[in-house]
This record gives sequence, structure tokens and C-alpha cells, in this order.
Amino acid sequence: MSKMIYITPGPSQVYPGMETFFQDAIEKDICCISHRSSAYKAIHQKTVENLRALAGLPDDFDVYFLGSASEAWERIINNFVSENCFHFVNGSFSSKFHEYAANSGKKAIQAKVAQGLGFDKEHFDLIPANAELIALTHNETSSGVQTPESDIHATAKKHPNALIAVDMVSSFPYPQLDYTKVDTALFSVQKCMGLPAGLGVWFVNKRCRNRYDDLVIAGKLMMPHHNINDLHSKALEHQTPSTPNVLGIYLLERVTSELLKKGIDVVRKEFDEKYAFLSHSIAEIPFLDYGVKNVDHRSRTVVVANTELSPSAINKHLAESNLFVGAGYGKFKDSQIRIANFPAITMQKMEKLVKNLKKI
Amino acid sequence: MSKMIYITPGPSQVYPGMETFFQDAIEKDICCISHRSSAYKAIHQKTVENLRALAGLPDDFDVYFLGSASEAWERIINNFVSENCFHFVNGSFSSKFHEYAANSGKKAIQAKVAQGLGFDKEHFDLIPANAELIALTHNETSSGVQTPESDIHATAKKHPNALIAVDMVSSFPYPQLDYTKVDTALFSVQKCMGLPAGLGVWFVNKRCRNRYDDLVIAGKLMMPHHNINDLHSKALEHQTPSTPNVLGIYLLERVTSELLKKGIDVVRKEFDEKYAFLSHSIAEIPFLDYGVKNVDHRSRTVVVANTELSPSAINKHLAESNLFVGAGYGKFKDSQIRIANFPAITMQKMEKLVKNLKKI
Repeated sequence: MSKMIYITPGPSQVYPGMETFFQDAIEKDICCISHRSSAYKAIHQKTVENLRALAGLPDDFDVYFLGSASEAWERIINNFVSENCFHFVNGSFSSKFHEYAANSGKKAIQAKVAQGLGFDKEHFDLIPANAELIALTHNETSSGVQTPESDIHATAKKHPNALIAVDMVSSFPYPQLDYTKVDTALFSVQKCMGLPAGLGVWFVNKRCRNRYDDLVIAGKLMMPHHNINDLHSKALEHQTPSTPNVLGIYLLERVTSELLKKGIDVVRKEFDEKYAFLSHSIAEIPFLDYGVKNVDHRSRTVVVANTELSPSAINKHLAESNLFVGAGYGKFKDSQIRIANFPAITMQKMEKLVKNLKKI
Repeated sequence: MSKMIYITPGPSQVYPGMETFFQDAIEKDICCISHRSSAYKAIHQKTVENLRALAGLPDDFDVYFLGSASEAWERIINNFVSENCFHFVNGSFSSKFHEYAANSGKKAIQAKVAQGLGFDKEHFDLIPANAELIALTHNETSSGVQTPESDIHATAKKHPNALIAVDMVSSFPYPQLDYTKVDTALFSVQKCMGLPAGLGVWFVNKRCRNRYDDLVIAGKLMMPHHNINDLHSKALEHQTPSTPNVLGIYLLERVTSELLKKGIDVVRKEFDEKYAFLSHSIAEIPFLDYGVKNVDHRSRTVVVANTELSPSAINKHLAESNLFVGAGYGKFKDSQIRIANFPAITMQKMEKLVKNLKKI
């Protein structure tokens, strides 16, 4: 087995024990069983229950499995928005979410800020009264900027008629979202879950489902695959409408079970401790600087730093210790590094990383 | 490792050596590497080259990876059809393909036949001149009916302006399609490829891409995720627009490499030999009868038989020998069995199955 440690913002280091999970999957015929069998339904149900427990989801939420988190962007826009939506854009991925809405023919307004910035009162004040849905990215993977939960909750309170959609692709289960104020949320398993890519997870509440029904009645929906009606009716039977990534769902059950064993409070505490250590260390490494100036807006799960050395030069040094960090995203690929603070990257690994960064 | 052999129409028995492929994936960090890395691009390129070789794809074809084959139905309809399409429906899955079109707001006309039937001249004569796309299912997994390649090719010849879409979800790489007459085709990896589910493969030619461009210019497209423009431009770089099922693509490379080592002619000969044996054996088993009367319409990859004994009673007997066959689909779940004739089910396994069916 490779000794390389991928401290990258996803795909990332797999969760400890993944090799055993794979062996168990082979032994239990996870890759052969029908997605309509009772064996599958039991796995599906357990995975959903684990996710509900980790998130603290109210009963009116469904949990759906899609091909990717990007797919969820399209499904959210096309299943819940008739005309008007509002997007907070502070990086490449929140920008893509907005683009999906615009390219779906919606009047998609955005509050857009430059790399490394978050949102302030002036941006939240831009939300128009007719917004049917407000899209917020809890953790913008490209820039390492977070939108604090308190801002998300305040937005929901101020706009009770709008659906609140939260992209937490690279932060779940870290954010302490109040799901009486959030209507739909999504994440990818190749980030904090430390799983192989190829599975998107989508939380959808009753309010969203009602909105979907209204749009169907109004004849405004043209999205046959993974529509809410099929997803919901199959979810009630612990199934999916089409054949899902059964192996991914099984592996997600295993990882979420490990996280629950530890307890969500401990998991979040570990995120915080490693973040504090990393954040503190950046100040001590001469060639690094904070990519996000406002402390409140700094991501706790994807730490982005400006670098005077190129990411490839850094990784060349780190490779000697079998460590690998992410380069910056898009046009910041040569001037920033991105360090994943995911559960699979333990404090011990973070200490090893910082020690080796300091040696450069 | 389980000794059970899943002779089911998908998910199905995994391809021999899957355990080793998993171990190699772990060792090579397949689950950790970035989907933008050169390591990923090499895997992507090799998998696509293997698929091109297996299918005999002309150069103007792209190969895309989606979340499932069902997703490809939606993408085909919404990326290539403005108003009118025609569907051959002879089972639950071809019916769903038609439903996807109807629910996308298209004028989707169908030629529909009862369970166990295929299509004759009278059905092919129904195709209207204004059909922009004609959807044919080479292998209807629910009923075990095939639409012979010759009928698909003749349809293409008679309707040169229509795009020809072929669902070969549970038969690729068996069908010897002439890809100068077929414009787009799709399949799932959990059928003949013997892979874990969670990956759809989609072939798309230049004619389809031109049709897509026309619809974009006409302002008739509202499908931002997995749109042809993004899929095509990323395919040129051996990548996908969003994070794909990297592990699935790697495993597909391994299995297609095995099939190519054997040679596609030998692979098809083995399909034929096992089909002939199975088909012959059905006549010798008192409680079974052919689910499809017309020999030309009998699927070579999913053999469906009417049964006087219930599928669960049959599987109870077979379980003593660690064998498991598929029940009928939908309302035929108690009156039919479906036997997968996939590459992972060798002649030796087929002989074991028939021997044990005869003992009942």
C-alpha cells in the first residue's frame, strides 16, 4: 500500500480502514447484490440513518444519493426554482452553481466577491424579495472561504419565503446547521468522508418537495431523471430510482458509523483543533500567508494559503516525506496551496506536514 | 470471499479478479488522486481507448462517463431533441426511456408491444418523417427481448435525418453495431462488464454534437450539468466536467483490458456458445419455457424464461449450490426468471446452473 498522504481538498486521503472496508464489501457481495434486494435496502437505510444522526436532520428531510454534488446543483435549480434565484459567489464552485441556474434559463442574480473574500451585510442586503431560492456555499473549496452558519441562519430568518440551499460539498459534517432554517443541502463523499469519488449526497425537506409539486402542477418542470417524486417515493422504500453507486453507499455507511462512534462533537472538536494548529502554523512559515484575511471567513476544512514558493516546488520537498498538498484552484494554481483538514488527516499527519513545511 | 454466484441481470457477478483490481486500486491510490492529475488522465484515456477498440468506434465519437445509464436517457433527449422523437417500447426500461422524453415535454411517440415481443415491419413503418431521434433498445433487460442489429441499421438507412440512439445497457460489448449508422449509445457497467454499479458510459458522435449546437443556438437547451459542450471539451483533455467515479473508471479499464486480451471475436463467440447451451437447456427443463417465442428476438445476454415454479422456490434450490438467478421484472416477478449471460458467468458456471436446474 502506498505511503503517500493526500492532504488535498478532494479527492483526498481515504478514511483509515478503507482497505478493510473494500475487503468486507467483496466478502459481503456488495458489488453483486440487487439494488432492490433487502440486503441493499438495509445498507441504504443504515447509511441514511447515520447521515441523519450526523447532521441532526429533522424527520421531514429526505436523503438522496446522486452521481455527484454537481448534479445536485442542477436538480436544486430545476426542481425548486420557477424563475428567480439568488447566489452568493466567492469562488469557482459557487460561480458554477450560479452558472447552472443561469444556463437553466432562470433569472439568477449573484452577489460576487473577489478571491479570498466572504460576504458582509451589504451583500446580504442585495437579496431581492422575489428570490424563490437563495444559494449559499458554506465552504468554497476553490478559495477556502466559509460562510458562517450564523449568516446562513440570519438569511433564512430575513427571507422566510425563499428556500435556503447550502452547498457544503467540502465541509459536511463540520457545519452546525439549523435544519429548521435550511431547506436543502448537498455534499460530496470524496471530501470530508474520505471516500472514493462518484457519489453525491442531497438533503431535501418537505418544503422543497411542496415547491416541486407546485412547479409540476404549473407545468414548469422538465426534469425526468432524479426528479423529486421518484426520489421521494423510492426513499420511502430505502431505495433509489435508478441503480446507484451501491459500493459507495456501503462505504459511506462504514465511514459515517466510524464518525458516529467517535461522536459528532468530538469530530467537530478535532476539526477545530487541527484548524487552530494549521492556522497558527501558517504565521510561522515564512513563504506562506493567509489566503483569507478575515478570520471569521476562513474555512475550517480547506485551509488556503498564499505561497511565495510554487506548489509544485513545495510538493517536491514534501514528497520526500510522502506528503502531498493541493495546489491553488484555477488562476491561483501557482500562487496558493490548499490544505485539506478532513477527518482522515489526523493531528499527527498535520504535525508531520507542518514540520516538513517548516523545513523548506 | 462469498461463494455465491450471481447469475442476475445486473448488478451481477463481478468480473474474475475484481478483488485484485481493488487491491491494486488501493495500492495505486486510485481513490485519492485528483481527477485533474496526469495519473487520472492516463487512466481515463486508456479506458476510453479500450472502449473504442471493443466497440469499433469511429474517430468522431466521444466517450463520456455519467452517474448511470438512466442519466444518459435524459441527456440524450434533452441535448439532442427539440420536439419530436420516436421510441420502440417492449419492456419496462424502453418504456422509461420513452417516459423521460414525454416528461421532458417532447412529442414522444412510441411503438409499444406486449411482454416477450419484439418489433416487426409494421412497427418500423410507424416512424414519422419528422422524428429527430429514434430510440431503440438493443437489449430490453426486463423482458429479455433483443432488437437485432440488422433492424437498427435498416432503420438508420431509412431515416437518414434522424439520430439513432441505442440503449445497449445490458448487452455491450455483444452487439455488432455499425457506428456509421448509430449516433449515440449507452450502457451500464454493472451488467456485461461485471463491475460495481455507479457508472454509465455514453457514446456520442459528431452528428449529435452538431445537433446540440443547433439547439443551443436556437435557445432550446436548459441542461447545464453534463452538457455536451462541457463533456466534449473535457473529453479532449481525457477528463470529465465534474468529479467522476474514478474507481469505477479504473476498474472498467481493467475489465476492458481483460476482454481485449481475449479479443472481441472470442468474447462474442463465448456469448453465443453459452446462449446456445442455455437456450437448448430451457427446452429440457420441464418447469421452464421460453419467455420470448421469436428466436430472432431472444436476447443473447439476458435469457428470460417463463417458470411454473416461483423464482424464490428455484433460488432456494439453487442456493444449496451457491447459485442465484434473477426473478422476472415488475409484474412478471413470480412467473419468469432472468439468467444473465455475461462474461463473468463462464460456461462452467452455466453448466453448473443448468445441472442444478435440472435436478429441481
